[in-house]
Amino acid sequence: MIPFQIDTLGQPEHHSPLALSIADGDGVANFVSEETRVLFEHFVHTNRPSDTRSLELAGPRQNIFFQPQQCRAAVVTCGGLCPGINNVIRSIFIELHHNYGVQEVLGIRQGYLGLDPAHGEPPKKITSEFIEVIHTLGGTVLGSSRGPRSPEVMVDFLQSQQIDMLFCIGGDGTQRGAHAIAQEVNRRGEKIAVVGVPKTIDNDIPYVYRSFGYATALEKAAEVIRAAHVEAKGAINGVGLVKLMGRDAGFIAAGATLASQEVNFVLVPEIDFSLTGFLAALEKRLHARKHAVIVVSEGTGQHLLEKATEQDLSGNRRYADIGLFLKQKILAHFASKDFSVNVKYLDPSYLIRSVPANSADRILSDQLARHAVHAAMAGKTNMLVGHWNNEFVHVPIPAVVSEKKILDLEGQLWRSTQLATGQPRWPPAKIKG
Amino acid sequence: MIPFQIDTLGQPEHHSPLALSIADGDGVANFVSEETRVLFEHFVHTNRPSDTRSLELAGPRQNIFFQPQQCRAAVVTCGGLCPGINNVIRSIFIELHHNYGVQEVLGIRQGYLGLDPAHGEPPKKITSEFIEVIHTLGGTVLGSSRGPRSPEVMVDFLQSQQIDMLFCIGGDGTQRGAHAIAQEVNRRGEKIAVVGVPKTIDNDIPYVYRSFGYATALEKAAEVIRAAHVEAKGAINGVGLVKLMGRDAGFIAAGATLASQEVNFVLVPEIDFSLTGFLAALEKRLHARKHAVIVVSEGTGQHLLEKATEQDLSGNRRYADIGLFLKQKILAHFASKDFSVNVKYLDPSYLIRSVPANSADRILSDQLARHAVHAAMAGKTNMLVGHWNNEFVHVPIPAVVSEKKILDLEGQLWRSTQLATGQPRWPPAKIKG
Amino acid sequence: MIPFQIDTLGQPEHHSPLALSIADGDGVANFVSEETRVLFEHFVHTNRPSDTRSLELAGPRQNIFFQPQQCRAAVVTCGGLCPGINNVIRSIFIELHHNYGVQEVLGIRQGYLGLDPAHGEPPKKITSEFIEVIHTLGGTVLGSSRGPRSPEVMVDFLQSQQIDMLFCIGGDGTQRGAHAIAQEVNRRGEKIAVVGVPKTIDNDIPYVYRSFGYATALEKAAEVIRAAHVEAKGAINGVGLVKLMGRDAGFIAAGATLASQEVNFVLVPEIDFSLTGFLAALEKRLHARKHAVIVVSEGTGQHLLEKATEQDLSGNRRYADIGLFLKQKILAHFASKDFSVNVKYLDPSYLIRSVPANSADRILSDQLARHAVHAAMAGKTNMLVGHWNNEFVHVPIPAVVSEKKILDLEGQLWRSTQLATGQPRWPPAKIKG
Amino acid sequence: MIPFQIDTLGQPEHHSPLALSIADGDGVANFVSEETRVLFEHFVHTNRPSDTRSLELAGPRQNIFFQPQQCRAAVVTCGGLCPGINNVIRSIFIELHHNYGVQEVLGIRQGYLGLDPAHGEPPKKITSEFIEVIHTLGGTVLGSSRGPRSPEVMVDFLQSQQIDMLFCIGGDGTQRGAHAIAQEVNRRGEKIAVVGVPKTIDNDIPYVYRSFGYATALEKAAEVIRAAHVEAKGAINGVGLVKLMGRDAGFIAAGATLASQEVNFVLVPEIDFSLTGFLAALEKRLHARKHAVIVVSEGTGQHLLEKATEQDLSGNRRYADIGLFLKQKILAHFASKDFSVNVKYLDPSYLIRSVPANSADRILSDQLARHAVHAAMAGKTNMLVGHWNNEFVHVPIPAVVSEKKILDLEGQLWRSTQLATGQPRWPPAKIKG
Repeated sequence: MIPFQIDTLGQPEHHSPLALSIADGDGVANFVSEETRVLFEHFVHTNRPSDTRSLELAGPRQNIFFQPQQCRAAVVTCGGLCPGINNVIRSIFIELHHNYGVQEVLGIRQGYLGLDPAHGEPPKKITSEFIEVIHTLGGTVLGSSRGPRSPEVMVDFLQSQQIDMLFCIGGDGTQRGAHAIAQEVNRRGEKIAVVGVPKTIDNDIPYVYRSFGYATALEKAAEVIRAAHVEAKGAINGVGLVKLMGRDAGFIAAGATLASQEVNFVLVPEIDFSLTGFLAALEKRLHARKHAVIVVSEGTGQHLLEKATEQDLSGNRRYADIGLFLKQKILAHFASKDFSVNVKYLDPSYLIRSVPANSADRILSDQLARHAVHAAMAGKTNMLVGHWNNEFVHVPIPAVVSEKKILDLEGQLWRSTQLATGQPRWPPAKIKG
Repeated sequence: MIPFQIDTLGQPEHHSPLALSIADGDGVANFVSEETRVLFEHFVHTNRPSDTRSLELAGPRQNIFFQPQQCRAAVVTCGGLCPGINNVIRSIFIELHHNYGVQEVLGIRQGYLGLDPAHGEPPKKITSEFIEVIHTLGGTVLGSSRGPRSPEVMVDFLQSQQIDMLFCIGGDGTQRGAHAIAQEVNRRGEKIAVVGVPKTIDNDIPYVYRSFGYATALEKAAEVIRAAHVEAKGAINGVGLVKLMGRDAGFIAAGATLASQEVNFVLVPEIDFSLTGFLAALEKRLHARKHAVIVVSEGTGQHLLEKATEQDLSGNRRYADIGLFLKQKILAHFASKDFSVNVKYLDPSYLIRSVPANSADRILSDQLARHAVHAAMAGKTNMLVGHWNNEFVHVPIPAVVSEKKILDLEGQLWRSTQLATGQPRWPPAKIKG
Repeated sequence: MIPFQIDTLGQPEHHSPLALSIADGDGVANFVSEETRVLFEHFVHTNRPSDTRSLELAGPRQNIFFQPQQCRAAVVTCGGLCPGINNVIRSIFIELHHNYGVQEVLGIRQGYLGLDPAHGEPPKKITSEFIEVIHTLGGTVLGSSRGPRSPEVMVDFLQSQQIDMLFCIGGDGTQRGAHAIAQEVNRRGEKIAVVGVPKTIDNDIPYVYRSFGYATALEKAAEVIRAAHVEAKGAINGVGLVKLMGRDAGFIAAGATLASQEVNFVLVPEIDFSLTGFLAALEKRLHARKHAVIVVSEGTGQHLLEKATEQDLSGNRRYADIGLFLKQKILAHFASKDFSVNVKYLDPSYLIRSVPANSADRILSDQLARHAVHAAMAGKTNMLVGHWNNEFVHVPIPAVVSEKKILDLEGQLWRSTQLATGQPRWPPAKIKG
Repeated sequence: MIPFQIDTLGQPEHHSPLALSIADGDGVANFVSEETRVLFEHFVHTNRPSDTRSLELAGPRQNIFFQPQQCRAAVVTCGGLCPGINNVIRSIFIELHHNYGVQEVLGIRQGYLGLDPAHGEPPKKITSEFIEVIHTLGGTVLGSSRGPRSPEVMVDFLQSQQIDMLFCIGGDGTQRGAHAIAQEVNRRGEKIAVVGVPKTIDNDIPYVYRSFGYATALEKAAEVIRAAHVEAKGAINGVGLVKLMGRDAGFIAAGATLASQEVNFVLVPEIDFSLTGFLAALEKRLHARKHAVIVVSEGTGQHLLEKATEQDLSGNRRYADIGLFLKQKILAHFASKDFSVNVKYLDPSYLIRSVPANSADRILSDQLARHAVHAAMAGKTNMLVGHWNNEFVHVPIPAVVSEKKILDLEGQLWRSTQLATGQPRWPPAKIKG
């Protein structure tokens, strides 16, 4: 079996209308062929063989499956907000309409709910006027919702609307939904391309080195950490405590820590930290330096909290609030020592994800969107556009939704946060999982 | 009795070293004389007489009380953080040192605590290198603390350090402390000028039209409201709920509402709102428009919460959390109606006050600081620098600390927020106080 | 004659639909009466009488001239861009439509050109959807143009479109145009209210203490000065030279200087500086401190440049480039002294005016817009909304366009820039004008 | 010969003081071994063999060459400013001092000039206080200069100061200087590690996928393009023309174009565009859409300008101003057609490089700095820290300075800009070089 093989709707027999070249050396940007693939692993080892698997390279194909002039496309955005969603919508439309010549692009309203005509609002026709300034706005102009809908109902709707390609912007729940749609489409023998654009503020989707919105989230998170540091230094024995998004993975906390360089303790879901050890280390720090900054991911230390059994509509567990928990524990600890501390708690919550995308995320959103269009035009389906080794690649959705990306506690990023914070390992060094 | 009369240490007999003029028409900026004052009221009424009281105009005097070369000055920053404190410190130093030629300026550490040598850290000599970049930083490089200290102890310290002028940057608690110091100085027959620079993120100090930091706080608060609006629109029946600073006065909430133009309900401490009426109005709004944005000042609706009896070290009452309270009430209300809503709660807390000052606040901080120096140099004492009718003025501290400035519910600012939100009055229109 | 008397279209006989009060003490925001006016001068002098002239207070009147339901309004934006124009358009529409109930609001395209159907594009109907996000955007969504059009043609068009009130957002050229329209309307005995909203990035309109966009411009200008300072300090004998907008008035240069606190020389149109003296002072500065920052308004030192005779379409003189001139003179001066300097020239040009409005300008734009609507509704005409002594006022257009506001070289603002820069007066202290 | 082999000073015989691990699976971040390398090429081809060269992986080694306690290190910053330089300085110090325990770190002033005691200022000892807030500041706190100095003189100075390791932050000129120093050190048989940190605002250094400062530059550049677009749309036949940095490579122009999505023409040094063709295309665009945005790199179209023979002190050619040239050509072209256009020219110049680093660049700066320290500690020399395939790597300086990275006109980035702008190829499609 070829690993990471991409499903296709059939033979691409139409010529792409894009003004690109296939010749090297003519100074004209090239179409992408299937002959070049992207290595999954970029390391080579002197003491063991490398992983030689490779991923399909994304990009415009010279031959495409659909006749653009007769295509109808649809875009849907699901789940939580993320800086860049509107940029993805806009670039999908522009690439479809202005570059390929697709005449009809529908915006599905309110996530998958909008594919269920009994419950959702009808789609909106996307126009040049509609998308004109949306790249400067946070959120999603199409609305969103959480939770799955019946694949049968959704494919019925796609067929009734004569949709040829559906772009699903969302996280792992959304991509599972996209997969179910693609399977149902396939079962019916239809020719509807289902292409995912990965969206996760937590940066925890596999085969996506950096997801769109993450860079913007770090920018805002670092701003909040800066405020926490200023507060900590402005008070006597000031403790700035910042809770950041990150349900299962600490990428936001780790990245914002590196961006800030003012964090003394960074607590992420991947570590199984000892509260006693942490408080002792904090006490030592305050005695020595009279202020401290702590960053904690929302999903951290769930073993310390009473088990939360709730789930939200996407099936994500709802977490008890580790930030308020830590605040109370810190206050109680130092009260018991008769040591006066000033805890300043900052919880930016949605602020880091509802803002417009920064420049890096605008670029990334645009690229993911246009590569999604190229993929759909070529008849690729049941796949999403990943970003690996600085290349845009095609990844089968099943490979993506089978796992979550988490911090490698022995890898470069976490090592860097350890060197940047100087935080100790809290004995016993019990490792999670 | 002359209203708003300013205490002085004695006859100003020295010539100012500033290169200003007293002649009109020579194109050189002028010293300020005592002959021009600023009207307290800027209205004239056809049907009743105007208030003719006036305030002393701030600015550099041609004759000054102190010999700059032999002066020792000190600066202290107290209470909560506010964008612009470092700008005030920096401009006080620059005006004292570079323009007047004062050789010694001490930075008192950790607020009034630093004037109590038994408990605080010793002062730090302020230098050009120390202040070089602090105007770009939030917080206070001198540290801060809350709560009063003994005037006797503090004046002992000032005398031991041969301080001639003390600049007290802080809110009403701080200014009460400054007043106590000035009285103790006066009782001892000393010649130490005590000059206040008003600091309040809440913009609630009388005779100060706009306090430094307020403009920056609005900038950040409006950014958070924008995020709340984006979240509200991105979810089905989304409710963006934002809690903002404002213990006794709703200036931040009202100002940020005007800056945002996306707020549907603004709840401030000055109004005595009906929870039932509010929830009914919110329900109506959601039915009609499917999303809503609510802004609430932290001090709002304390009558609805269990009485909080705690006080912080400055003697400020600690408030129970109206934001979380409202969130719960909204959720409960709509749950009881079987109407699904998505409440997104944003509490920027310290974020709006720990950031660097924006341009408007940097200008204001600089002006307040330099006018404080001019006042101290002229031998003014027991006063602070106010900002009234776009002029900088001298105000006796007792006049300032005798009351708090609150929103006039019948005035222009509140009227504007009402027109911008379209929020109803909740019957019965019970007026607070 | 009553000074500053405002023209009206007739007796206001309709009741305002706004839910305001006329009673004091009922906790409900109040309508504004004609009985309270705003003093022009806020000073009182012990040695001479004060100016007792006063301006009409702006605000919603209980009785209005137009029946809102039957009104047709139009908005036009002219001249150069300014942060906040879209905010004014949006708030005019919202106040007209949502608060007063006006059904038809037209957006005139491309400035006064759009009032000339032979040459301009037809107007666009403004809707809630059209204005939804424009408050987050720089520029003007209606387009703009420069230069006058025939009042007869424009009034013909207003009549043909059955416009009852025209809001003219623009600078002195625009207001002169508004005045011509109002006169032509009056000549014809029509009842069309012509209300101006003053727009000037240079902050040089009389009776407008701070014009919208100015605060934002200072924010951006100060950012550029910061960059210039960083460049100056990063090189050997670095000179950061920044040219800022300001054709006839140095308010941007002066304000940005205060906001920056890193400027050593600020050169504005109001001063008649000596190049020789300036270069000598710069040389002294570089010897002493090894870097310098210079800010120059574009209209400065025109006597030094070859006479520019061009005019742009608004009739504004086109200026030769003082920034490049100074750069060359500085380089030549130090080359002649064999003293190596690194001049870093920054000309942000349009960058400071094309950005979205900051919080302060969003508030101001909203207020000016809504007060313009209140004025038009009350039948006021041939006037604009000013901002004086922190109140919104009505000012007759002729009073506004008869002069430009310039820096008072002997007043507080310029004095402050002198104290902040420490720049010398260059002998001979020849005063302009 | 092993490609990309790194020079070392000798056997690393000391144990690293860093609290890292060599075991997998213990949950502790790991030291880096020499056994894992980073592939140079990440593609695999079905029709031809891949490049199998690999680069040395950067990171902390378990065994190091220097005894940290007895080390003296020095840092020098050369050439033009770039967002993140201060972040590099700070992280080098923190990693050396706080993590490795190095006691003495000197900051060389004013670039290589500071290594020449006859001409430069003496070095400054870097302390925790000195670097406390510099990560929030643009520029370089150590100063900079351009141009080479004698390697003999510099090595004499390093020996006289007993420097064990020198960190050279700079572009290709600086790295050539570092190479000369390393060679001279080697010739003398000394044990001084010379480690480069690549700095280029233009992102044109080989083996560095994204250089620090580039992301920030894009952020600012995109802001300027946004302003240009707003200006273009605000005027009749408005043309926003933006000149951006980029002497030999168009990465800033291309990246900012993708970030903006509002650019219609992007002109970079790598293309050999036809002025006639460009003007024809612009004319077509203006007729169709009535506004246009053009971005041009400063190094573009030098064949069109009179040959500039000047060089700056670093040996870089000084370019004539393509921005002003284009502005004039556009005005002349449309004047000849009697077609009125409004050209708004924006040249942000230094503004994009003198600002503080954004979050992405702060992270990158920190990582490059700490990896440089690890390399020096391990005794690596004559190398710099690169960033390749998302890993930090060691690259021999000679490999880096032998070429410049330029845009691949047939690769993904340029293809993306073509799809985003829709700009034509101007016949004849003459390819540069």
